[in-house]
Amino acid sequence: MKNIGLIVEYDGSNFYGFQKQDKLRTVEGELEKSLQKATKEKVEIIAAGRTDKGVHSLGQMINFHTNAVNIPAENYKMLMDFLLPDDITIKDSFQLPYNFHSRFDAKKRRYKYLVYNRYLPNALYRKYAYHWPYEVQLNEMILASKYLIGEKDFTSFTVSNKEEKVNPVRYIEKIDINKRGYLIEFNILGNAFLHNMVRIIVGTLLYVGVGKIKARDMETILKKRDRRYAGITAGAEGLYLMEVFY
Amino acid sequence: MKNIGLIVEYDGSNFYGFQKQDKLRTVEGELEKSLQKATKEKVEIIAAGRTDKGVHSLGQMINFHTNAVNIPAENYKMLMDFLLPDDITIKDSFQLPYNFHSRFDAKKRRYKYLVYNRYLPNALYRKYAYHWPYEVQLNEMILASKYLIGEKDFTSFTVSNKEEKVNPVRYIEKIDINKRGYLIEFNILGNAFLHNMVRIIVGTLLYVGVGKIKARDMETILKKRDRRYAGITAGAEGLYLMEVFY
Repeated sequence: MKNIGLIVEYDGSNFYGFQKQDKLRTVEGELEKSLQKATKEKVEIIAAGRTDKGVHSLGQMINFHTNAVNIPAENYKMLMDFLLPDDITIKDSFQLPYNFHSRFDAKKRRYKYLVYNRYLPNALYRKYAYHWPYEVQLNEMILASKYLIGEKDFTSFTVSNKEEKVNPVRYIEKIDINKRGYLIEFNILGNAFLHNMVRIIVGTLLYVGVGKIKARDMETILKKRDRRYAGITAGAEGLYLMEVFY
Repeated sequence: MKNIGLIVEYDGSNFYGFQKQDKLRTVEGELEKSLQKATKEKVEIIAAGRTDKGVHSLGQMINFHTNAVNIPAENYKMLMDFLLPDDITIKDSFQLPYNFHSRFDAKKRRYKYLVYNRYLPNALYRKYAYHWPYEVQLNEMILASKYLIGEKDFTSFTVSNKEEKVNPVRYIEKIDINKRGYLIEFNILGNAFLHNMVRIIVGTLLYVGVGKIKARDMETILKKRDRRYAGITAGAEGLYLMEVFY
């Protein structure tokens, strides 16, 4: 049995998210369908991150175990190019140690978030960036982002989930914010992220940008451990999973 | 009667081109439909360039005459934001001198062309860049592009059109070619362009990039005045009308 790794790119616009769901078109569902055709056996994949509906990827990492040992690992990227729908592509494929696990072994993840910052929306970005019509103070946003760096309890920056007990402590290594023309690009590097965490961070920083929240209030928001103190959840369309580090 | 100008952005993916056609979804058709709702009268628009099926715009210029003189010209951009489908947006609207004509008065046009240059395609660019899987020599392409600068007969770089007699002489002021990561970006500035001219120029330069055509052959290709000597017509999905100058 072989353990195969794939780097997966997808345009999230036409998927109901990553995770398999009955009767809905999902990235996982499409990947497993195509891998079943390739390997002639039922395949179950493990992914570094289960992205939400509308979220894109340029660097999702998945792995799966297969008895189709005669297929060279490097061939999957070509094979899948024929089998997959054209809104999913495999950037690379390779063999992994038998016990390698895409999710548990991931050390860091990098996300990009794009905001289209102009009063009127832009047709070309409607599914690829979050439209924010108000003028922002970029310096205030950068200042505010510094409060999030390090190991923190991010309870205020996630959707409350009563059923599942999740440790809310995460480590953010870096948040870069740049503006080129109408596009604001956030690059966020951390060990792992809670549900909606990147989108709530961006939504909160946008609130800082327009003065609804002060940069120094970030400390209080973290301390409160209450979602209601943070800003909005910025849209899924602006989020890109860029890279997973092992 | 007022003459109103609009700067129009659109994602060309879901249109059968700019020009109105019976029963097909076109940019012109959608614009006229929405303008009719806004002005309560039949509107006929004049556009700087009639882009083909799949071609995008970030700077198409159109104008139209209207008796709805009570609508301030600046209000159209907001009004149209409500009325138009979300793959067309109006970047700006303003009043023009009565005789201003978007097409006849245009002095220069700038087009951008994006090539995604990696062996395997990328899901996120499939409708926004032309996939070229072969390695290219960028310096050769830049060298070849210099032969196209100036006033030239571009008969070899257009689709032959037997019905319509068109003067094949055009003036190209500048061709910039850059590569960032997997994306090759062409920026082409000229007075006007023949049908498919930008796409055939890019297709020919890609042939130069892989050595199928030599840079110095560009002179011969121009002289032959025969479409068959140039390279392929690169796909519509990579082409963006960026700006029209008056």
